[in-house]
Amino acid sequence: MAESWSFLDTSEPNFRPLVVIELAKGTKEETIAWFTKRIVDKKGSGGAQLLVKPLVTEKGDENIYLVGASHLRLLLGAEAVGLVKECNDNSMRTFTYSSRKTFKDFADDNHNFLTMAECQYIIKHELENLRAKDEKMIPGYPQAKLYPGKSIVRRLLTSGILVQIFPLHDREELKKLRHSWYGRVKVGYQPLDEIRSYFGETIALYFGFLEYFTFALIPMAVIGIPYYVFAWEDYDKYVMFATFNLLWSTVILEVWKRICAIMSYRWGTLLMKRQFEEPRPGFRGVLGINPVTGREEPVYSSIRRQIRIYLVSLPFVCLCLYFSLYVMMIYFDLEQWALDYHEENESNFSSLMLYVPSIIYAVVIEIMNRIYRYAAEFLTSWENHRLESSYQNHLILKVLVFNFLNCFASLFYIAFVLFDMKLLRQSLATLLITSQILNQFAESLLPYWLQKRHNKRMKKRMCSLKTDTDMSLLEQVNLEKEMGTYFGTFDDYLELFLQFGYVSLFSCVYPLAAVFAVLNNITEIYSDALKMCRVYKRPFAEPTANIGVWQLAFETMSVISVVTNCMLIGMSPQVNALFPDSKTDLVLTVALVEHLLLAIKFIMAFVIPDKPRDIQIKLAKLEFESLEALKQQ
Amino acid sequence: MAESWSFLDTSEPNFRPLVVIELAKGTKEETIAWFTKRIVDKKGSGGAQLLVKPLVTEKGDENIYLVGASHLRLLLGAEAVGLVKECNDNSMRTFTYSSRKTFKDFADDNHNFLTMAECQYIIKHELENLRAKDEKMIPGYPQAKLYPGKSIVRRLLTSGILVQIFPLHDREELKKLRHSWYGRVKVGYQPLDEIRSYFGETIALYFGFLEYFTFALIPMAVIGIPYYVFAWEDYDKYVMFATFNLLWSTVILEVWKRICAIMSYRWGTLLMKRQFEEPRPGFRGVLGINPVTGREEPVYSSIRRQIRIYLVSLPFVCLCLYFSLYVMMIYFDLEQWALDYHEENESNFSSLMLYVPSIIYAVVIEIMNRIYRYAAEFLTSWENHRLESSYQNHLILKVLVFNFLNCFASLFYIAFVLFDMKLLRQSLATLLITSQILNQFAESLLPYWLQKRHNKRMKKRMCSLKTDTDMSLLEQVNLEKEMGTYFGTFDDYLELFLQFGYVSLFSCVYPLAAVFAVLNNITEIYSDALKMCRVYKRPFAEPTANIGVWQLAFETMSVISVVTNCMLIGMSPQVNALFPDSKTDLVLTVALVEHLLLAIKFIMAFVIPDKPRDIQIKLAKLEFESLEALKQQ
Repeated sequence: MAESWSFLDTSEPNFRPLVVIELAKGTKEETIAWFTKRIVDKKGSGGAQLLVKPLVTEKGDENIYLVGASHLRLLLGAEAVGLVKECNDNSMRTFTYSSRKTFKDFADDNHNFLTMAECQYIIKHELENLRAKDEKMIPGYPQAKLYPGKSIVRRLLTSGILVQIFPLHDREELKKLRHSWYGRVKVGYQPLDEIRSYFGETIALYFGFLEYFTFALIPMAVIGIPYYVFAWEDYDKYVMFATFNLLWSTVILEVWKRICAIMSYRWGTLLMKRQFEEPRPGFRGVLGINPVTGREEPVYSSIRRQIRIYLVSLPFVCLCLYFSLYVMMIYFDLEQWALDYHEENESNFSSLMLYVPSIIYAVVIEIMNRIYRYAAEFLTSWENHRLESSYQNHLILKVLVFNFLNCFASLFYIAFVLFDMKLLRQSLATLLITSQILNQFAESLLPYWLQKRHNKRMKKRMCSLKTDTDMSLLEQVNLEKEMGTYFGTFDDYLELFLQFGYVSLFSCVYPLAAVFAVLNNITEIYSDALKMCRVYKRPFAEPTANIGVWQLAFETMSVISVVTNCMLIGMSPQVNALFPDSKTDLVLTVALVEHLLLAIKFIMAFVIPDKPRDIQIKLAKLEFESLEALKQQ
Repeated sequence: MAESWSFLDTSEPNFRPLVVIELAKGTKEETIAWFTKRIVDKKGSGGAQLLVKPLVTEKGDENIYLVGASHLRLLLGAEAVGLVKECNDNSMRTFTYSSRKTFKDFADDNHNFLTMAECQYIIKHELENLRAKDEKMIPGYPQAKLYPGKSIVRRLLTSGILVQIFPLHDREELKKLRHSWYGRVKVGYQPLDEIRSYFGETIALYFGFLEYFTFALIPMAVIGIPYYVFAWEDYDKYVMFATFNLLWSTVILEVWKRICAIMSYRWGTLLMKRQFEEPRPGFRGVLGINPVTGREEPVYSSIRRQIRIYLVSLPFVCLCLYFSLYVMMIYFDLEQWALDYHEENESNFSSLMLYVPSIIYAVVIEIMNRIYRYAAEFLTSWENHRLESSYQNHLILKVLVFNFLNCFASLFYIAFVLFDMKLLRQSLATLLITSQILNQFAESLLPYWLQKRHNKRMKKRMCSLKTDTDMSLLEQVNLEKEMGTYFGTFDDYLELFLQFGYVSLFSCVYPLAAVFAVLNNITEIYSDALKMCRVYKRPFAEPTANIGVWQLAFETMSVISVVTNCMLIGMSPQVNALFPDSKTDLVLTVALVEHLLLAIKFIMAFVIPDKPRDIQIKLAKLEFESLEALKQQ
C-alpha cells in the first residue's frame, strides 16, 4: 500500500467538486495558504492528499473552496474508513485496496464504484483527521491554539475561521431520486437503496423505519375503524383490541430489529467496525494526558461533569417538569371555564369553545417542547461531554423525559385522576391532530416556502450579473450554502416516538389514533422527503447499523402502554360489572393480567432472534473466515 | 512463526506428563499406532506435535498414555488458543510468540510462565483440533467414520475407543492450594488467583461468586436476626426490611458484574477472543455442507430440531410440571392429616409429627429434581443441538423452570391461596434447611467418604505389588483415573440459585433465611473446595469471562421477588389496618409501590456501569491501540 500513496497525483485534470469549504470573510492569506497546503499535502508529510480549488466569485473574494479527490485517493480513503462493500461472491467484506478486484462492479475506470455520498463521507473523514504536527497555533490566529494530534478542522470551526463544510448536491442524481421518491403518485415502497446511496445510512434508516412503522400501524388502524364507526363502546370488545395492540407493538419492535439487520447488512454498516471516537468539537478542558490514547489533549474531570449533571441539570429538568405540570393545571382551569360557559349559554359558538382550551394547550405544549429543547441543548453542551455519543445520549434522555411528561401528563391526569373517559378521548384527539398539523407545518412546509422565496431572489440576482465563470456551479454553491442545515434525525424520531405514545398509551379509549397516525405518516414521508431534497443542505452520510437509543425508547413506551391500557380496561364500567361484589377482585385480576402480559412481552422479546437466520449464517461465515485467516498467519 | 514450528523437538529429555489418555482395553494395535503418530506428528503434516508416552503398568497392557509438550510447543499453543497475559507495562495483551519478550515474567527458561492449568488447556485444545485428513475411518474400526476436518478425538470418544482424557493433578501444588484454601481455620478471602491458576477461570469464578454472594448476604442476615429474635411481628418494620432486601438484591447483582469484570480482566479472559465453536461430541446428522464453514460435516435441519423441542420436549416439561404440582397437592393432604392428628391427640410426638410432611416433601423434591435432571439431559441431548452452548442453554432453561416450580410452588400456594403465614414460615424453614443438608451430604461428604475408602483399597493393592516402575506416577494415574468426573459448575450454581429464591422470594416472612444461607455458604465453600481437591478428577480449565446465563437467572429471580414481597406485605394485617375502609385502595397502593420498585430496579441496573471505570479505560486503550496498529499497516 505504501507505493499506492506515492503515485497519487493531486492535480488530476477532471476535478469533480464534492465538498464545499466556506471560510469566514476576511480570513488571513497566510491561514488560507497554510490550510490549503495541508489539505493538498502528501499523506506521508501529514496532509490529506485531497484536491482543492477556490471558487472564484464575481467579487473575487476567495472564501469558498471546493474539495475533491482522485479516484485512487478515494479508494484508499474507503479502506481507511473501513467501508464494507459487496464482493463478487455476493458476500459483504471490508474493502481494501489490495483486494479491490474481488469486489462487485469494481473496475479501475468505474468511478461509480463508490457512491457520491460515500466519497463525501471519506473526504469529511480525511479532513477531520487532518491533524496538527508541530504547529502551536493556527498561522495568523495566535489565539487558536493547536497541539500535536489536534484536528485542524475542528479547531478552525470552534475558532470561527471555518464557517461550514458541506457536501454538494448532485443535481442530476437528486432529480432522479426525487422522481422515484415522491415525484409521481404511486403506491409502493420508498427507494431506500437509492436514498441510502444519496443521503447515507442514518437518513435511509429513518425513512425505512418511518415506512415500516406506517405499515405496522395499518392493522391497528384497520381494526380501529369499525370500533369508531359502529361505536362499539362495550369494553369487552375493547379488551380484545387493546390486547392485540399490546402484543402487536411488541412484535413490530422485535421484527424491526430483524428488518434493520437485513438492511444494514445489505448496506455494509452491520459489519463496519466502530471507529475510535474523537472528542466532540465543543469539548473544552485543560491540556492533560488522555489515559486511553496517551496523547496530550484537553481533559475534563469526570467528577466535575457528574456534579454539573446531578447538581444543575437534574434540578433544572425537575423544575421544568414542575412548570409543565403547572401549565397543565392552568389548562384544566381553562377547560372548566369553557365547560361552565357552554352550560350557561348553550350555542354553536359555545360548543366550539369547548375545543379551544385543548387546542391552545396543544400549541403551548409544542412551544414549550421547542423552548425546552434549546435549554436541554445548552445544558448538555455545558455538561462538557467528551464524546458526541455521550452528549447525544444525555440530550436524548433529557428531551425524552420532558416531552413525555409534557405531552402525556394531562392525559394521565384525565384518565387516572378525573376518570373522565369522554374528556380523555377529546383531549387525545385534539392533542394528536394539533401536534401533527403543527409539526408538518413547522418542519417542512414553512422552510420549503421560505427556501423557495429565497431561491427566486438569488436566481434573479445571479442572472443580472452576467459573469463568465462556471455559472451553474457558482450558482449552485451560492444557493446551497445559504440553505438551512439538517441537524440530524433527532426531531423526526422524537415526533414518531410521541405519536407512538398517543397511539399505544390510550389505544383502548381512542382506536382512531392509529388511523390518524397512518395518515400523518403517509404525508410525513412526502414532507420529510421534500425537506431533505429541497429545503436543507445535503447532509454528510453517516454509517449506522441501527436506530440506536430510539429502539430502547420505543420499547420502554410499549412497556408503559401495557400498564396504562390494563388500568383503563380495569376502570371500564363493563369490566367493573363483571365483579359486582368486590372491587378488590377486579383490581387483583387486572394486576394479574398486566403481569402476565408483561411476562409474555419479555419472553417474546427474548425468543424472537434479533437477526434473521440467513444474516446470522452470513455473519458466522465471516467470523469463521477471519479466524481461519488468523490461523494461517 | 513458520520457522518456530520446524525447530520444535518432539523428543525432549525432561518429559513432564500433563494429560492422561485412557483407551479402551483391547484397542487394536494399529489404531494406537496411528493415533499416537498423529499426536506426535509435525504440525505441518497435520499432527498435534505433542509428546506422548505409554504408562507401563504392572500387567503390561498399554491402554494409558501420558501426553506432554515441549516448552516451545506450549508457547506456540498459547498463541493458537489466544491466551491473554500480563505485559511488562502491566497491561493485558494477547500472547504471541514473536512478542514473548514483552510479557511479564517471561524468560526462555522460566517454565512457570504458563500455569499448569493453561498448559493442560492448550493440550486439550490441540488434541481436540487434531483433524482427519484423508482418512475415511479410524484404522481398525471401519464403523467409526471420518471425513476431512472431523476432530479425531471426538470420533474416538463417541465410538468408545477413547475412554477419557483428563489432566493430571500436581500433587505439590495441590497440597499448597489445599493449605491456603481450607487447610487452616482462618477468616478471610479464598485464594482465588491460586484457584484460578490451578483449576481455571470457570471454577475460580464460581468460588468467587459463592464468596461474594455470601458476603453480600451478611447485611441481610445481620438485619434479619433482630427481627427473628425480638419477634418484631409488626409488618411496618417488615416493610422496611423487605424494601431493603429488594434494592439490595439489585445492587449486589449489578456490583457482581463489576467485580467479575475486574477478576476476568486480571485473568485475561475478559479480552480473550471467542473461538469458533465446533459441533458438540454428541451431535449427529447426515453428511452435508455446513453453510458457515463450507466444509463437509454432519448437518441436522433446524426445523426438525424445532419440532422436537416444541412437540416433544415442551409437552414433556409441562407434564413434569403438572406432576410436580400433583405431588404438591399430596403434600398438602399429608399436612392436613398431620394437623388433624396433632389436634386429636396433643403430645410431643404429635407436634413433632407436624414437621414430618414438610421434611418428606423436601426429600421428595430433591429426588424429583435429580430424576428430572436426567430426563432433561436426555431430552436436550436428543434435541441434537449442534453447539455445546446451545445445548447448555436449553438444558439450563428446562432445569431452571422445573426446579423453580418444584421448589417454590408449595410456598406460593401456601402464601397466596391458603394465606397461612405461619405454615409458610414453617415450610420455608423446613424446605431450606432440609435441602441444604441433603445437598451438602449428597454433593461432597458422601463422594468424599466413598473416595477415601476407594483410595485406601487402591493403595493397599498397589503396595502389595512392588513393581519397579515409577511408582508414584503410576499410582497417581491409577488413583485419579478412577475418581469421579466433575461435570461443571451447573449444579453448584443451581443450588445457589434456589437458595437465593428461598432468601429473596419470601424474605419479609422469614428473615432468618439469609442467616441460614450465610451459614450454609460458609460450609459450602469448604465442602466444595474439598470436593474439587479430593473427590473429583482434576477438570480441564475453561476460560470464561462471566457467569453467563446465571446472571440472567439471578436477575429474573430478583424481579419475581419484588412481586412476591409486595404481595406478602399487602396481605399483612398491619398494612390492611392502614386501609380500614377500602381494600381496593390497599391493592392499588401495593400495585403502585410494586411498579415503582420495579422501575427503580431497572433504572439502577441501567445506571450502574457494568465495568468499573479503570477497566473501561484499559479496554478503550487496547481498542485504540489496535485501531492505531491497523492504520499503520
